[in-house]
Amino acid sequence: MPRYVYRFGAGEADGNAGQKGLLGGKGANLAEMTALGIPVPPGFTITTEVCALAVDGETDLRTLLGSQVDAALERIAELSESAFGDRNNPLLVSVRSGAPVSMPGMMDTVLNLGLNDETVQGLAEQTGDGRFAYDCYRRFVAMYGEVVMGVRAETDGDESPFAVLLSDKKSEVGVTDDSDLSADDLRSLVTAFKIEILKRVEQPFPEDPMAQLWGAVRSVFGSWQNKRAVFYRRMHGIDSKVGTAVNIQTMVFGNMGGDCATGVAFTRNPATGHSGFFGEFLLNAQGEDVVAGVRTPENIAKLGECMPEAYEELLTVAERLERHFGDMQDLEFTIQRERLWLLQTRTGKRSGAAMVKVAVDMVAEGYIDERTAIARMDPAKLDEVLHPTIDPESKPPLIAKGLPASPGAAIGRIVFGADEAEAWAARGETVLLVRNDTSPEDIHGMKAATGVLTARGGMTSHAAVVARGMGKPCVTACRALAIDPAKKEMRIDERCFSLGDLITIDGATGEVFAGRAGLVPASIGDEFGTLMGWVDEVRRLKVRTNADSAIDARTAIAFGAEGIGLCRTEHMFFAPERILAIRQMILAQSLESRREAFAQILPMQREDFKDIFRVMQGMPVTVRLLDPPLHEFLPHTDAEIAELAKASGRTTTNVKRMITDLAEVNPMLGHRGCRLAVSWPEVYEVQARALAEAAVASLADGVPVQLEIMIPFVSVPRELEALRPLICDVVDVVLEAAEVELPYLVGTMIELPRACLVAGDIAEHADFFSFGTNDLTQTTYGLSRDDAGRFLPDYLERGLLDDDPFVRLDREGVGALIRVGVEQGRAVKTKLKVGICGEHGGEASSVEFCHREGFDYVSCSPFRVPIARVAAAQAALRGEARSK
Amino acid sequence: MPRYVYRFGAGEADGNAGQKGLLGGKGANLAEMTALGIPVPPGFTITTEVCALAVDGETDLRTLLGSQVDAALERIAELSESAFGDRNNPLLVSVRSGAPVSMPGMMDTVLNLGLNDETVQGLAEQTGDGRFAYDCYRRFVAMYGEVVMGVRAETDGDESPFAVLLSDKKSEVGVTDDSDLSADDLRSLVTAFKIEILKRVEQPFPEDPMAQLWGAVRSVFGSWQNKRAVFYRRMHGIDSKVGTAVNIQTMVFGNMGGDCATGVAFTRNPATGHSGFFGEFLLNAQGEDVVAGVRTPENIAKLGECMPEAYEELLTVAERLERHFGDMQDLEFTIQRERLWLLQTRTGKRSGAAMVKVAVDMVAEGYIDERTAIARMDPAKLDEVLHPTIDPESKPPLIAKGLPASPGAAIGRIVFGADEAEAWAARGETVLLVRNDTSPEDIHGMKAATGVLTARGGMTSHAAVVARGMGKPCVTACRALAIDPAKKEMRIDERCFSLGDLITIDGATGEVFAGRAGLVPASIGDEFGTLMGWVDEVRRLKVRTNADSAIDARTAIAFGAEGIGLCRTEHMFFAPERILAIRQMILAQSLESRREAFAQILPMQREDFKDIFRVMQGMPVTVRLLDPPLHEFLPHTDAEIAELAKASGRTTTNVKRMITDLAEVNPMLGHRGCRLAVSWPEVYEVQARALAEAAVASLADGVPVQLEIMIPFVSVPRELEALRPLICDVVDVVLEAAEVELPYLVGTMIELPRACLVAGDIAEHADFFSFGTNDLTQTTYGLSRDDAGRFLPDYLERGLLDDDPFVRLDREGVGALIRVGVEQGRAVKTKLKVGICGEHGGEASSVEFCHREGFDYVSCSPFRVPIARVAAAQAALRGEARSK
Repeated sequence: MPRYVYRFGAGEADGNAGQKGLLGGKGANLAEMTALGIPVPPGFTITTEVCALAVDGETDLRTLLGSQVDAALERIAELSESAFGDRNNPLLVSVRSGAPVSMPGMMDTVLNLGLNDETVQGLAEQTGDGRFAYDCYRRFVAMYGEVVMGVRAETDGDESPFAVLLSDKKSEVGVTDDSDLSADDLRSLVTAFKIEILKRVEQPFPEDPMAQLWGAVRSVFGSWQNKRAVFYRRMHGIDSKVGTAVNIQTMVFGNMGGDCATGVAFTRNPATGHSGFFGEFLLNAQGEDVVAGVRTPENIAKLGECMPEAYEELLTVAERLERHFGDMQDLEFTIQRERLWLLQTRTGKRSGAAMVKVAVDMVAEGYIDERTAIARMDPAKLDEVLHPTIDPESKPPLIAKGLPASPGAAIGRIVFGADEAEAWAARGETVLLVRNDTSPEDIHGMKAATGVLTARGGMTSHAAVVARGMGKPCVTACRALAIDPAKKEMRIDERCFSLGDLITIDGATGEVFAGRAGLVPASIGDEFGTLMGWVDEVRRLKVRTNADSAIDARTAIAFGAEGIGLCRTEHMFFAPERILAIRQMILAQSLESRREAFAQILPMQREDFKDIFRVMQGMPVTVRLLDPPLHEFLPHTDAEIAELAKASGRTTTNVKRMITDLAEVNPMLGHRGCRLAVSWPEVYEVQARALAEAAVASLADGVPVQLEIMIPFVSVPRELEALRPLICDVVDVVLEAAEVELPYLVGTMIELPRACLVAGDIAEHADFFSFGTNDLTQTTYGLSRDDAGRFLPDYLERGLLDDDPFVRLDREGVGALIRVGVEQGRAVKTKLKVGICGEHGGEASSVEFCHREGFDYVSCSPFRVPIARVAAAQAALRGEARSK
Repeated sequence: MPRYVYRFGAGEADGNAGQKGLLGGKGANLAEMTALGIPVPPGFTITTEVCALAVDGETDLRTLLGSQVDAALERIAELSESAFGDRNNPLLVSVRSGAPVSMPGMMDTVLNLGLNDETVQGLAEQTGDGRFAYDCYRRFVAMYGEVVMGVRAETDGDESPFAVLLSDKKSEVGVTDDSDLSADDLRSLVTAFKIEILKRVEQPFPEDPMAQLWGAVRSVFGSWQNKRAVFYRRMHGIDSKVGTAVNIQTMVFGNMGGDCATGVAFTRNPATGHSGFFGEFLLNAQGEDVVAGVRTPENIAKLGECMPEAYEELLTVAERLERHFGDMQDLEFTIQRERLWLLQTRTGKRSGAAMVKVAVDMVAEGYIDERTAIARMDPAKLDEVLHPTIDPESKPPLIAKGLPASPGAAIGRIVFGADEAEAWAARGETVLLVRNDTSPEDIHGMKAATGVLTARGGMTSHAAVVARGMGKPCVTACRALAIDPAKKEMRIDERCFSLGDLITIDGATGEVFAGRAGLVPASIGDEFGTLMGWVDEVRRLKVRTNADSAIDARTAIAFGAEGIGLCRTEHMFFAPERILAIRQMILAQSLESRREAFAQILPMQREDFKDIFRVMQGMPVTVRLLDPPLHEFLPHTDAEIAELAKASGRTTTNVKRMITDLAEVNPMLGHRGCRLAVSWPEVYEVQARALAEAAVASLADGVPVQLEIMIPFVSVPRELEALRPLICDVVDVVLEAAEVELPYLVGTMIELPRACLVAGDIAEHADFFSFGTNDLTQTTYGLSRDDAGRFLPDYLERGLLDDDPFVRLDREGVGALIRVGVEQGRAVKTKLKVGICGEHGGEASSVEFCHREGFDYVSCSPFRVPIARVAAAQAALRGEARSK
């Protein structure tokens, strides 16, 4: 029979930290800690292999595992000198999930399992504390009722039936705190809970501990497939086939009195990366109380005052674990009657800033080498490090302060629920989720929100951990907040804020402001520069930026861009003083009047280009000639139409008719890109002239220029064959007149399937290819980005697609076309320069693809340049590893 | 030095009929006729190789060819016992174009070249007819002025300056007929013409015959690139690189008196294919007079009465030529003083009906074999044979009668100009072009019109020849018509018809009717059936039809369809009694109400399918499940919106908002096809049930059923993986309940680039592939069919594209994807059934592609089934020829 159960306890373990795939992260690390001699309550792990069997529902787990589980249970009973179901000396256990990849709070947990009407008395006698025993019992029945028997609130967000009964009981007795309920109160509550279960699911609460155990095991495995877990996996790209393990472990109690505690700690600061022990604890509490944020915990340093010995031991254990695992650890511990027990250790989730600082510090401390530091980066998280923070000079009124749970500034409209957050975000609002505390049910709302603010919780509460994981600013424990979700408002002192009001939070300071704060660029720590130095030594791919203005270009250079891969000229047209000229150009009936109207734009474009050349100082600048369909420039409001009519000497009716005439059924597939220039060559002529004149003027000012002119939306090689000489003629005349020698390239954007398929013929007329993967994805899939919102989320949720192809390059379909394009192109011109300038240029997996396919560069938005640099370095490292 | 000049005359020729590529059709056949001993005026041909050199303008033709031309000219001077430029005995020549492919009237011609103020006197003396000599001279100066010197009307359609001067002269003298002008009148007209030329182009008319000759040669070569010729080549898919030859030939005169004539004849009837000599002539006229339709010619039979000997000789020559060339010939001849001269023979253009009849008759007559008959078919022309004709029972009032110049019925709105025709057609009107006569400048208008009606001309006039070539109905020589182009009206007796009035013409009878005639299906001759029998023996590809109704299916079967390749179910929804239920289904908020609304459709769909199965009698029927985005079904008018609101118990505001919500930016790339079914599986469930129930009911009625269910718009293999079982479950339950065994296929439409690229994975879940080349072309090119009208014509005109990719399958791009799809699919399933169901399925070149790629079938609209059958047979023949 295969081995499905791995035991740990009393310094011996069947498994080890290397078996995360089989035992899950929690199980593997419990085994490892046990073997290291660290105090871990004895227990055992049921492997992830069982998960698939449990989920398909066709295997009877007890038949499969029964004997292995019985044996393991017997051993932990021995070690704890108790027995499962024994009325005098009962063994109580926890049943917890634990997947190979951490999914905190996503799956179910059952604590205090083994209690029933008999064993609860044994527990009371054993501990001499009837109140404690019944408190454990009522928690267990409620937890079991919810998790295993499915007795839950009918609507998400409502209180559970058990919570309602608890509130009722407190009212009845006349107390406000749970801890003021007596043992008798709690006993009658247990009865009420059992009645509620029987009424709701028409099955009694099982008194048999073995039945309890199997019920819990099945449910915890089953929770792998619950909605939250599925959503989380999708969000984090976790394969749903890996499954979870289940850990059954002897209970230890942090809630047995004043000499007990429970807490969570990090070996370094997960928000900033600074060294120093970091964490929180609660005296006389169970672990869930810390994470759920119901009570606001104390700073871990205070533990040294209350229980100096246990605290010292914890510090020693923490340091040992960090050194052993070679990374920042996130620990869960319980102190039962002054004795320390470790319940979990795992690699600590951290903010982007902490990710960089910890890795660089650990290289300095000799824990890891530089390549490991690079490999450890989650490129997407670098984003947060670079984003702006609140400008200290322009802070709006400070209204409250909480804990700085996840750094960064967030400005958004207040919403009070997760669904609300999602709905508002879907219609384009930037929202800030405000809650008393968050729970796993709120994940989708947190994802939709730009930041999170909670009245309760702490630095390690659900809201804090999840927000840090998502890289969203978060402030917790903001006690001044009085939230009324029903009225959809919150009060701070006398001020009232309603649904939709704008506020700002600073997750680095815990400050909350009314209205919109001004922002300044992030101040980036030295560690960032150090890391990027290592990265640049390793990578082969060049990283450019998509920038339409000198400002963007400057930002990108600060982030390490090595050129501009995409400068969209149409964005230069939308400025109010230019748009009217563009519109007149579009409405012009004759070539002459079109050229005239467009000539007004020439000097403006020339100045734009000059500014960009000045910033780029000789780095390559790829300028894409006009791409969007003309109707995008036309006005929609009556006032604008009237203005245009007046300016162009037409009637409004006439202007309206022309707007209607220019409208397209499928603008994505319409009269755009080089098709416009085929109809109206003067458009590209004027742009080419502006570019050439800007280059000449820049050179005269001593500014070096490296110009690459890009023709978009080619589907037929002859388009390029026709347009290239048109552009070169204009540029050459300007250069010759100025007696300037300037080599420049003319290339094309490959963004249509046909362009990939005839890339060889296209390459005859192109000096470079830049893959426009946004449009290429749209056409390859037949999927309009503007319309996909109606069904793409469904596809992802139901696993029809693993990833959003607009975020992560589809290697199978779009990638196959790109491969054909590169091969054909390079077959004609061996040294053809190849790059990418779609959104994918700043996404790690897509950058790796480009590395593998031999691209010369990737280009992405300024803030993603560091991401691309790191991803390029990681791709190079993986490439080396493969070729070894 | 390469040989650029090929001589012919007096029974000897340098070239022969096999050299059409080098000598053009006219030149090669003149050489062949000469060698056959048929009387041809001596001359020589300058080869097509010179055309490219002439057109690029960088080669001096006289330097290149001078010596060869001089030698050839000397020889024809010898043969005609005259000399070029000799004032006593002048040699006059014609200079005509002649491409390898016939392009009648598209390029330029100069007649009577060699005349000047001196030689005209020689001609007068030699012929003893001063009036004749000056008539030739004035014609020559005008023609040379127009063609070589570019003195033309400033606006297309206006009379030329020379025609104006001619009219003025007639008024001045007080005569109405050209022939009433005296020699003196004509001489003074020549002077007026020369003054006009000098005034307009500031160059004198050249008196030197050699200068005239070289000017004419250059111009005739140059006319290869004129707008008409370019348009014609594009319309007929002629490669612009082939070029034209130029023929220089001794003049013979049909206008030297009553013993002279000129005419055009066909060896069979080009409209019907019936045997018997067919043609027209004019006494005392030059050839252009017949073709231009200025004078209405006489039936050729009358020539036997006027000049019995020449007529007999002509009949003998005609029969000999037909037998020699093995195909119906189109002859041009001139009789000069009772002596017959052949000026041209070529394969006669013919109507679709004639094409079939001539080929089948010629097989019977032993001229050709069956395979040659098949190879000679122009598949696209079969279309005309099959289209409806006027119902004799429901003819509107007959208003006039002309010559039956090109068969078929045309119903359209009157337009009087070519540009007008194009403009009206562009906005969706069906128009009928009404003219006094047509000229090459009108080609684009004829193409835009559904038919052509002329007041003048005859069976061989420009209008007649071009209309037959295009397969458009045409009535010529309708003398009752009095057209006033300026007023935009025409009068017939007392009745007046204006621009936009509806008329009907019958090109098979020459009848013209006021208003709209009823139509009945074409009566197809026996020859058609004979030919199709041969075709079906040769072809390997099956031919199915796209049919959404029993009526369409019945038509297609009559045309030889072997199954339905595409039955679009959405068309079944648009019937007025169904559309409301569909709309309610779309607006339904819950699954339940959606299913309920949709269930109303089920019985109707079931009946539709039963009807189709009954017609198809066990032939395969491929049913495509719902494809279009839902907003296509929603109403647009306020009345319909109100009705829908009432029926579904909503406010109109609510309905309008839902319509807006469902609108898409790029519907082509939107929420459609199987994406709908992923969101709303019940749509496909209901359709599958209707299909299964229809199959069961049909089988119970003894009707055999072969069902193929097709899932559209797949881009991700998992879509099919998810939807296939959903459909099969429904179908299987119905079949099992009825205790019926019915094998059926579930396959998919491959219509997106990604589907081709991952076709292997798709094939795992598909029993067949049907390539939807319409959408595949749209996505591969990034080209919306709805929007391409704004620029695609430009692309074709300027040669950026050789063909409209929506008409003729793009083998390079779309074809490459199809090849990948077939290869991948068949690699997974060797016997995967593969078909095509886009518009291309009825286009010959695309059908050939499908044959080559190993498709099982093509599917096309009912009327195109015969086209596809012939194209499939031709592809098979060509395949055999290649493999030999």
